[in-house]
Amino acid sequence: MEPLNIGPYSFSSRLILGTAGYPNYQVMLDALKAAGCELVTVAIRRLDIQASKDGGILEVLEEFQILPNTAGCFTARDAILTAQLAREALETDLLKLEVIGSDKTLLPDGEELLKAARELVRDGFVVMAYTNDDPILARKLQDAGCAAVMPLGAPIGSGMGVQNPYNFRIIREELEVPMLVDAGIGTASEAAFAMELGCDGVLLNTAISEARDPVLMAGAFKDAVHAGWAAHRAGRIPKRLYANPSSPTVGLIQRKK
Amino acid sequence: MEPLNIGPYSFSSRLILGTAGYPNYQVMLDALKAAGCELVTVAIRRLDIQASKDGGILEVLEEFQILPNTAGCFTARDAILTAQLAREALETDLLKLEVIGSDKTLLPDGEELLKAARELVRDGFVVMAYTNDDPILARKLQDAGCAAVMPLGAPIGSGMGVQNPYNFRIIREELEVPMLVDAGIGTASEAAFAMELGCDGVLLNTAISEARDPVLMAGAFKDAVHAGWAAHRAGRIPKRLYANPSSPTVGLIQRKK
Amino acid sequence: MEPLNIGPYSFSSRLILGTAGYPNYQVMLDALKAAGCELVTVAIRRLDIQASKDGGILEVLEEFQILPNTAGCFTARDAILTAQLAREALETDLLKLEVIGSDKTLLPDGEELLKAARELVRDGFVVMAYTNDDPILARKLQDAGCAAVMPLGAPIGSGMGVQNPYNFRIIREELEVPMLVDAGIGTASEAAFAMELGCDGVLLNTAISEARDPVLMAGAFKDAVHAGWAAHRAGRIPKRLYANPSSPTVGLIQRKK
Amino acid sequence: MEPLNIGPYSFSSRLILGTAGYPNYQVMLDALKAAGCELVTVAIRRLDIQASKDGGILEVLEEFQILPNTAGCFTARDAILTAQLAREALETDLLKLEVIGSDKTLLPDGEELLKAARELVRDGFVVMAYTNDDPILARKLQDAGCAAVMPLGAPIGSGMGVQNPYNFRIIREELEVPMLVDAGIGTASEAAFAMELGCDGVLLNTAISEARDPVLMAGAFKDAVHAGWAAHRAGRIPKRLYANPSSPTVGLIQRKK
Repeated sequence: MEPLNIGPYSFSSRLILGTAGYPNYQVMLDALKAAGCELVTVAIRRLDIQASKDGGILEVLEEFQILPNTAGCFTARDAILTAQLAREALETDLLKLEVIGSDKTLLPDGEELLKAARELVRDGFVVMAYTNDDPILARKLQDAGCAAVMPLGAPIGSGMGVQNPYNFRIIREELEVPMLVDAGIGTASEAAFAMELGCDGVLLNTAISEARDPVLMAGAFKDAVHAGWAAHRAGRIPKRLYANPSSPTVGLIQRKK
Repeated sequence: MEPLNIGPYSFSSRLILGTAGYPNYQVMLDALKAAGCELVTVAIRRLDIQASKDGGILEVLEEFQILPNTAGCFTARDAILTAQLAREALETDLLKLEVIGSDKTLLPDGEELLKAARELVRDGFVVMAYTNDDPILARKLQDAGCAAVMPLGAPIGSGMGVQNPYNFRIIREELEVPMLVDAGIGTASEAAFAMELGCDGVLLNTAISEARDPVLMAGAFKDAVHAGWAAHRAGRIPKRLYANPSSPTVGLIQRKK
Repeated sequence: MEPLNIGPYSFSSRLILGTAGYPNYQVMLDALKAAGCELVTVAIRRLDIQASKDGGILEVLEEFQILPNTAGCFTARDAILTAQLAREALETDLLKLEVIGSDKTLLPDGEELLKAARELVRDGFVVMAYTNDDPILARKLQDAGCAAVMPLGAPIGSGMGVQNPYNFRIIREELEVPMLVDAGIGTASEAAFAMELGCDGVLLNTAISEARDPVLMAGAFKDAVHAGWAAHRAGRIPKRLYANPSSPTVGLIQRKK
Repeated sequence: MEPLNIGPYSFSSRLILGTAGYPNYQVMLDALKAAGCELVTVAIRRLDIQASKDGGILEVLEEFQILPNTAGCFTARDAILTAQLAREALETDLLKLEVIGSDKTLLPDGEELLKAARELVRDGFVVMAYTNDDPILARKLQDAGCAAVMPLGAPIGSGMGVQNPYNFRIIREELEVPMLVDAGIGTASEAAFAMELGCDGVLLNTAISEARDPVLMAGAFKDAVHAGWAAHRAGRIPKRLYANPSSPTVGLIQRKK
C-alpha cells in the first residue's frame, strides 16, 4: 500500500483505531499491534491529561501517534476549546473534529461542525472532520480546509456498515482530500467494502474493542483494509445478471474509470 | 487459519481458483501464487488431456493440486463419464461436480446433480458439489456423502456476491461438511462476507482472471479470505440502530452462538 | 387488471390467501373480503373434511373458491395421496402442491416436488407448485405441466420479502406459465415489489393473519398488488446515481423490455 | 386515510406531484387526476408568471392547490427572494423550500437551507423543507418552525428509492411534524415502503412523468401510498429467519411500538 497522506503527515497504516471499551490496557495494546495501527484516537474531554500521562492511557500509548478527538462536544465553541486544550497538552496539531447533535444517536451536527472546522483550520489545526455522509457538506468541509473528510457509514456503535454506498461514491467524486469512513463499521467485510468504495482509510473502535476476541478481530481488520485497498485498485469485474455477454449489466458500484 | 479438511485431504489455503479467462499462463501463474492457492480447478471436458500434460495447462500447473471439474455437463450420465475420465487421466479422486441446467445462466440442475453425486460417491470419488443455495438440496448432497457442499452466491461470472445470505446461514446450520461459496463472487469484500457467513472456503475464477489487474486482485482475495475467516471466529458486535444500550437490535447476520 | 389465468381457470383477483393463524373466523372472513380475495388455500392434512363441511371452515368459506394444498407432506407419495383425497372431497382439480424438506424451515424439497408434480399432472390435476427460487427447477416444473410456478420469496412465516430478486427475474425470463410469489412476504411494499419483478400474483397468509390489524392489512395488500401490477406495466424509470443525463445507470431491476 | 395536516392546511391525498418532464399538458393532467393529487408543486424560477397564468401552466393547473418551490436556488438569499416572489404572485404562503448545493447532483445544501428556513418561517411562510436524510438537520428544521420536513430517499431523478431506511426511522423518532419523502422514488413499491417507514406522504415527479405510461404509473402510486399508509398502521409481522418460534428475529424495520 502507498502511504496515507493527511496534511503534512504520512502513515503507512490506513486503519485508525479508538481506545474505548476494551476489557483492559493489555488487550487494547495487543489489538492495536495486531491491527498494525499507527494513529490512535483519544477523546480529550474524557481525559484527566496529567493523570493520563503519568501511568495512564497516554503513557500506555506512547509508541503510537495520538489523534485527539472532540467527542462529547455539542457546539462549535465547545469543540474549539477542547481542540485548543488538546493541542497544548499533547503538542500535536492533528485533530479529529467531532461535533455531536444528539446524545442519543451521537450523529454529527453539520452546522456546528462547519463553523468549528472553519475556525480551527484558520487556527492552524490539521482537521480530520467526522461528518455524516452528505456530499455537499463533505465538499464544504474540504473547501473549509479540512485535511481529511470522514463520513460515517452508520451511527457510532451501530455496527451496520456503510448504509448508503451511493453517497460515498458521490463524495469520492467530489473530494480531493482523503475520505475515511468513520463510525458504523461492524465487521471485516464492511471495512473492505468501504475501501472498495474509494475510502482512503477506516476509523473504528467498537467493532474491535467489543468483539468477542478483540485481538483476532484486529488482525481481521488489518487484512480487510489491505484487501479492499488492493481490490479497488485492481479493477473489479462488472456486475451482471449472468455471465452471458449479452446479458444486461446490473452493476451497482463499479470500478472507477 | 486452521487447515481446510475435505474428505481425506487437508489444505492450508481456503481459496480455490479456476483457470479460465486469464490473458496468458504467466499472469495465471502469478495470480495463483499471489493468492496463495493450493487447489486449482480445471474443466475436464475442455481438455485434450495428453496435450495438456505435454507443455499444456496441466504441465503449467504441476506445482498445484488439480481439482478436476465437470463444467459443461448437462446430465448426471455425462458428468459421471467425465468424472471417471478425469480420475483415470489425472489420478485423483477429488472432483468438483457440476451439472448445469441452462447454457444461458449456467445454473445447476439439482435433480441431475443429486443423481450424479449419489453415483459418484458410491464409485469412490471425493465429491465437492457445486449447487444452488437451496438448504434442502445442500443437506441431501451431504446425506449422499459429498465431502463438501458448494452453494453459489450468484450465477457464474455475474460478480454479484452472495445474493441470499439467509440461505447460507440456514445451510450452515444444517451441514457438518465444509461449505464453500462457489460462483458469483465479484470482489474482495464479498469473499470476506461469505467467510463471515460461515463459509469454510471460497472458489472463484472470473473475479480474478478478468480483473483489470489479476495479480493484485489475487492478493486482495487472499487477504479477504483471511479477514473473513478471522472475523467470523472473533465474534462480531451485533447490529443496532444506534449505540444506545436500550436501542433495538436490528442485526441481520450475527455471529453464531 | 386483466384476469389471472391458471390452467382453465380465470380469476379477477391476483391475491391468494391462506387461512391459518387468524384470531377467529369472523376476522378471517373480514380480511378475505377486504383483500378482494377469490381463491383461498386450505391445508388438507389438517382437515377433518366432514366436520369442516358441517359448520367448519369449508362451510365458512363457501363463497370462495378453495385451493386445497398439501402442506405437511414430506414425500411425493404423501403429497399425491393427499391431493387425491382433496380432489375427491372438495370436487376440484385445482391444487397447491407443497412437498416440504424440513419441519424446521418448511423449505420445499425440489426432488420430491418434481416427482409429485409429474405424477399429479399425469393424473389430471391443475398443479400450482410451491417451490424455492431456483430457475432451473422452475422451468422443470413448467415442463412437467404445472399450471403455475410459485417460488418463495423467503421461508414461510419469515416475513422477509423477496430475498433474491435476480432469481425472480431469471425465472420470469424462463417461464410462460404464471409465476406467483408464495411465502415470505411480510408487508405491503414487498407484495408490490414482487409484482414489479414480474409476478402474476401473490400468495400469502401470516403477513395478514398475524398482523396487529388483519383487516386493515388485507386492504393494504389488495392495493399493493394493484400498485405493483400497474407499475410493472407502466414501465419504471431506470435507476441512476443522479439525474444528470451523462451519469452512469446503476439500475438493479429495470422494466422488462 | 386520515387527512394530511401541514401547518393550517389539510389534504386528503398524501401524494404530492411535480410538473416537469411530461410529454404534454394533457398527459400531465390525466396523471395528476389518476394519482388523486391535490397539491402540485411548481418551480417558480422557471416560470414567467404572467404568461403562466394566461393559458400557461398555472391556468392548466387551476383546479389544484399550487405548492411553489424554489428549485434552482443555490443560496438562502436566492431562495428567500424567490419565495417572496412566489407568495406575491400566487397568493399562497405554502412553500416547498429547496436550496441546492450542486447543479450536478441537485443535493440540498443544509447550511443554506437552515438559514433560509429560519428566515422564511419568521416571515410567515408555511415551509415544507426539502432536505437530505440527516436526522440532526431534520430536527433543526423542525425547531426552526418548518411545517413539514421532506428528506430525500435518493438524489432527484435517480429513481433508486429510499437508500437509508435507518435514517428515516431515526428521523421519524425525532419529529413531531409531518415527514414526507421527497426525491429518489422510482416505482410504486418504493413509495409504499417509504410510507411503511413512517412517512406521512410522498412527493415525486420523474417516476411518473418519465414512466413509459405516466397515467398508469400515477394510479399505481396512488394505490401504493394507500397500501403503505395502511400497512404501517396495521402492524406488520416481525422478520424472522424462518417461522419456528424459537428462531432469531432478524427484523430490520419493524412496526413502531
